[in-house]
Amino acid sequence: MQNQQYSSCVEACNDCADACDMCAGACLSENNVQGMARCISLTVDCAQICRLAAGVMARGGEAAKALCEACAAVCDLCADECSKHQEEHCKACADACRRCAAECRQMAAA
Amino acid sequence: MQNQQYSSCVEACNDCADACDMCAGACLSENNVQGMARCISLTVDCAQICRLAAGVMARGGEAAKALCEACAAVCDLCADECSKHQEEHCKACADACRRCAAECRQMAAA
Amino acid sequence: MQNQQYSSCVEACNDCADACDMCAGACLSENNVQGMARCISLTVDCAQICRLAAGVMARGGEAAKALCEACAAVCDLCADECSKHQEEHCKACADACRRCAAECRQMAAA
Amino acid sequence: MQNQQYSSCVEACNDCADACDMCAGACLSENNVQGMARCISLTVDCAQICRLAAGVMARGGEAAKALCEACAAVCDLCADECSKHQEEHCKACADACRRCAAECRQMAAA
Repeated sequence: MQNQQYSSCVEACNDCADACDMCAGACLSENNVQGMARCISLTVDCAQICRLAAGVMARGGEAAKALCEACAAVCDLCADECSKHQEEHCKACADACRRCAAECRQMAAA
Repeated sequence: MQNQQYSSCVEACNDCADACDMCAGACLSENNVQGMARCISLTVDCAQICRLAAGVMARGGEAAKALCEACAAVCDLCADECSKHQEEHCKACADACRRCAAECRQMAAA
Repeated sequence: MQNQQYSSCVEACNDCADACDMCAGACLSENNVQGMARCISLTVDCAQICRLAAGVMARGGEAAKALCEACAAVCDLCADECSKHQEEHCKACADACRRCAAECRQMAAA
Repeated sequence: MQNQQYSSCVEACNDCADACDMCAGACLSENNVQGMARCISLTVDCAQICRLAAGVMARGGEAAKALCEACAAVCDLCADECSKHQEEHCKACADACRRCAAECRQMAAA
């Protein structure tokens, strides 16, 4: 099967998307939704670009590098916001975003 | 973290999306692209609904059951087509689609 | 160009997706984010299935009917929630969801 | 309603996504699928990033500029490929990609 050279980046993108979507859903259930508004906005966006990047890499598409660069930039924004909060879902999301950003930058530079 | 009750279905959807996208990319590189046209069309569609269903489940969204039912229906179509071909990527995709359809039906019935 | 038979449903899906995404963003900026949590959750999900359905129809994919049925179901949920709120973005979103649900049901029955 | 400052870019992204998805579906139905493989790959990728960018702009998300830059880069790739083919769907797609790339660059620079 082709495109196995990207498998660790695909996995990081899938994991990050799941962590972002779980964080978005959990933030919407917090008592302090107001304080979580920026977190919700960024996690929804980040999950979408992570899932898109994973798909393009799995297909071996030429656009993969451009999309991984954009994915890394959105992961950075999301990690910065999530790391300001004490909730477990935010910490897990920040960690996943940082791993994904690193994998995407490595992939885009290859 | 919430929504861990869906974790095995989320994982099946992510795996199926990756297998579909890898199959789509590999089919586009085959000598016999013509004979793979229906497979390419269905794998692209199936990957998209799998990734969307994974995201909605991870967020704990109310729409998850309706989307998992639709996902199972598309997985069935894709598994039937992929199982007609001898390529390894098609076999792997058919297997992933069948597992994902079963998980999505179980989730939608829960 | 093929698939022009679906053009009015594709347009309704695109319009609904835009209205849902605008509503989600506006709800996240409201003072009463807490009271908008269910609306945000449903508009994000609804926008995603609308955009996916539009794409599958534009490609003329076989999965279009199954996905339009799911899209109509999510549009119903979203329209019901949005119609409970007085904000202009919620009213516009509820209207777009109702038009999209009707178009998707007509398309799925064709 | 917020985010109306992006309305012309959202519309260009939606139009480009529809043109790309129609081109992908039409290419898969051509006799010469083989010669259309790169076009299919790029139109599928381009449609996805266009739909994602439209959604993020409609929500007023902070990630919009990074995603519009990536969208413009993918539109360029897709326009170059589509402009090599004589089919009407390819010409329409190339035109839509060029308009979308210009709108996205203007938006990212604003």
